[in-house]
Amino acid sequence: MSRPQSPEPALNVQGASSIGPGDEDAADGTQHSHRMLSFSDALLSIIATVMILPVTHTDISPEQEFDKSIQKLLATRIAVYLMTFLIVTVAWAAHTRLFQVVGKIDDTLALLNLACMMTITFLPFTFSLMVTFPDVPLGIFLFCMCVIAIGAVQALIVGYAFHFPHLLNPQIQRSAHQALYKRHILRIILHGPALCFAAAGFSLFFYPASYLLMATVIFLPYVSKAASWCRGRLVGPREPPAHSLEFFTFDLHGPLSKERVEAFSDGVYAIVATLLILDICEDNVPDPKDVREKFSGSLVAALSESGPHFLAYFGSFATVGLLWFAHHSLFLHVRKATQPMGLLNTLSLAFVGGLPLAYQQTSAFAQQPHDELERVRVSCAIIFFASIFQFAIWTTALLQEGETLQPSARFGGQEHAFMFAKLALYPCASLLAFASTCILTRFSTAIFHLMQIAVPFAFLLLRLLVRLALAILRALPHLALRPAPTRPAPGGPRDDTCSLLLPAPC
Amino acid sequence: MSRPQSPEPALNVQGASSIGPGDEDAADGTQHSHRMLSFSDALLSIIATVMILPVTHTDISPEQEFDKSIQKLLATRIAVYLMTFLIVTVAWAAHTRLFQVVGKIDDTLALLNLACMMTITFLPFTFSLMVTFPDVPLGIFLFCMCVIAIGAVQALIVGYAFHFPHLLNPQIQRSAHQALYKRHILRIILHGPALCFAAAGFSLFFYPASYLLMATVIFLPYVSKAASWCRGRLVGPREPPAHSLEFFTFDLHGPLSKERVEAFSDGVYAIVATLLILDICEDNVPDPKDVREKFSGSLVAALSESGPHFLAYFGSFATVGLLWFAHHSLFLHVRKATQPMGLLNTLSLAFVGGLPLAYQQTSAFAQQPHDELERVRVSCAIIFFASIFQFAIWTTALLQEGETLQPSARFGGQEHAFMFAKLALYPCASLLAFASTCILTRFSTAIFHLMQIAVPFAFLLLRLLVRLALAILRALPHLALRPAPTRPAPGGPRDDTCSLLLPAPC
Repeated sequence: MSRPQSPEPALNVQGASSIGPGDEDAADGTQHSHRMLSFSDALLSIIATVMILPVTHTDISPEQEFDKSIQKLLATRIAVYLMTFLIVTVAWAAHTRLFQVVGKIDDTLALLNLACMMTITFLPFTFSLMVTFPDVPLGIFLFCMCVIAIGAVQALIVGYAFHFPHLLNPQIQRSAHQALYKRHILRIILHGPALCFAAAGFSLFFYPASYLLMATVIFLPYVSKAASWCRGRLVGPREPPAHSLEFFTFDLHGPLSKERVEAFSDGVYAIVATLLILDICEDNVPDPKDVREKFSGSLVAALSESGPHFLAYFGSFATVGLLWFAHHSLFLHVRKATQPMGLLNTLSLAFVGGLPLAYQQTSAFAQQPHDELERVRVSCAIIFFASIFQFAIWTTALLQEGETLQPSARFGGQEHAFMFAKLALYPCASLLAFASTCILTRFSTAIFHLMQIAVPFAFLLLRLLVRLALAILRALPHLALRPAPTRPAPGGPRDDTCSLLLPAPC
Repeated sequence: MSRPQSPEPALNVQGASSIGPGDEDAADGTQHSHRMLSFSDALLSIIATVMILPVTHTDISPEQEFDKSIQKLLATRIAVYLMTFLIVTVAWAAHTRLFQVVGKIDDTLALLNLACMMTITFLPFTFSLMVTFPDVPLGIFLFCMCVIAIGAVQALIVGYAFHFPHLLNPQIQRSAHQALYKRHILRIILHGPALCFAAAGFSLFFYPASYLLMATVIFLPYVSKAASWCRGRLVGPREPPAHSLEFFTFDLHGPLSKERVEAFSDGVYAIVATLLILDICEDNVPDPKDVREKFSGSLVAALSESGPHFLAYFGSFATVGLLWFAHHSLFLHVRKATQPMGLLNTLSLAFVGGLPLAYQQTSAFAQQPHDELERVRVSCAIIFFASIFQFAIWTTALLQEGETLQPSARFGGQEHAFMFAKLALYPCASLLAFASTCILTRFSTAIFHLMQIAVPFAFLLLRLLVRLALAILRALPHLALRPAPTRPAPGGPRDDTCSLLLPAPC
């Protein structure tokens, strides 16, 4: 067992938890928490993403103009989606922290966790109420009640775990300062519910104040993280207070567990990829009567009517799949996901969740060619933001590369240039497509579809190019020890090329 | 590293794949496949389950009777759901086998796997076409093309992996009979596509034959598994042929990887739990105009209209959550998932996927009280089948307990009785509810809701009862070495009590 201790001992390795007769924790009623955490991650990522469905299901009939009322409905639903996404990621981060402290579970904790999940699933409904009735305080009151209930259940979990210390993370179990840890984790968990308690009070007589407090609960974690990161960049890392040095060998503000970040991201990508097929199955199976009357019984003719939908579907699936592929390649080289990286990942995922909207936009071309330009631009923008935040994760990781990246992905490492090309491909392609629509306005749809088809091939070519470059390198042995020469992304930006030219420090 | 070698070396333990500077496989372009497999499991489980949505979204307006056309529509959609579920689980099992052979991946394999997933997501659409136009051969032709495409991509993966043997499972890598393994896995993978090729041919001139062949592709794996298991039970395990003893130390017909069974099941439970909130958010936010006109501006009054929906939602979420909990507890004690257990798990999941239908049934009470009896019975039946198949997994595991279960869960083990009670709770409760509706027809809704509320408490009480019993045991030290006395499930069946009374053989 020469492997260094992982920073999150709470994350029990799956294989070790079940195989082999030596593993008999089950005998004392405790269980490794790995599977419960994966299940929670899956639930939370699906809840975060699924609220995009009402947005994409907003029916805009062909005769209807894209008028005020439709715009308001769409804006409402997008607001619900974004608020749900952000609050669920806040809840997810708190959940991650909580189960860094609680290392094992028993049946009671598993049931409490289910209760917590059930309350979280109710949050999107309160948002729907809030945005449909912005001047009725009931929505915000229910929201606050939910957050308080979640906080109460999580506090129960903490209380239970500290009452039976064998459930705690071994590091805390051995520590002499359990009470301090308990207070610390409770403060993290009850921060939001306390604010919501105040908000619930305000909602009864002066509800605008509760909206303000709610915004604090949702956005404060992001703002404070971003601020502390900027400060860290400008001034240098903050000195930890003395008592923390003394007591908190186990850092609750440290990086999120990489496995849980991956699991949450996978959930989002998987649900986004599969939401698309649902639309295809519900909307594109022609009506038997229509086929008989309009197409004189020819199913092929009826289906070719909705040809653009299938094209859009495959394009969208390819986009989601390849963004997942880039994410997967990136995190393969990541050792540790720091807080700013987690924040950027959340932002990227929020836009990935918006991709079904892009799909709906592109498949609507067939019906409404008159505003296709706006639709192509919206799609390009969504893809651009989803991918540029992925790229930002990578540049942020490079700032602390010794800590966050595997050697091969660092400046001058073997995979550095290839990684750069992979992550730069989508931002460049979508930016290029957006720019071209400004010049070649008439061909915007064609440009967009061209991009959707070209990028997967570019990914395949990328690999071949790298193979070719490596083969050339091998043929020129005097160059073999220098880093791979710049293999730029097709059409990739040059602002980061200096990094590609640095000698290998590893 | 004293842990015995897991039967599936292809399954790389997550924690080990990424943390620690020693892990630099990435340098030669290969990657551990764990995360890609989890992502595939998530995708496949969502595709398998999501086709229940069109079933639940079948609109039955209050004035409409439950007439022939509605019945036909519902039956059609349920058929699509079941066919999708079964074919996706077949594809999933083939995928599991494939990545037992291919131990590591590189970028090309990851992209090929994405292509394979994209083709699988298209299968539900072909089913929709088939059931909407049963006498047009286009649907079945497209289905066959999809299966052939999936087979082609999987064969490509196999070919690629055997061309670069460092990607193979280490056991096969070392073997002198790689060509034999290759032929063997190709036969497993291309079995379905070959049948579909024939079916595609038939679809052009005599399509009923293609339906027959398609049914073979979907059901044969289940039928043959069930048959071979029954034969194994009756006659004893089949003698493996001589050459297999000689060559195949690595058994491709062996148990499925437990981790992947868990991941797939988690995906199904998670998506089912969250589909429910989507309905709540789309249907139960009252219209601002209605609130003004019907309820004189009182949102609370408008919401209390849809009170039964919220009750049904919480009841459904609790049911899904607790079924997951029972599954989780069961697999915690499972060492190895044999093929019959995998088959029973699939059947259980198919009914779990039907739970949103139960939710929709119960929430429809409010509108259509006249056929509530049928609806309650359908719901009870779905819950009963979902849970009885879970129970069957457990009894099947007990038949080969030495191989499949942890010692504490075997006959006479510490957790045996508790496990039994946990798994028997839902079948008994739903059966009881069903029976009561036959006698107390008028109170069927009340009975159903009572069950939904009572069961979660029963789960909590179960734990307390066991605690109490253990405390009593500790107080009576002369009894401490004997197995725990029968702690029957509240209202549980007695047919299995003999097992509880057997002395501990471990």
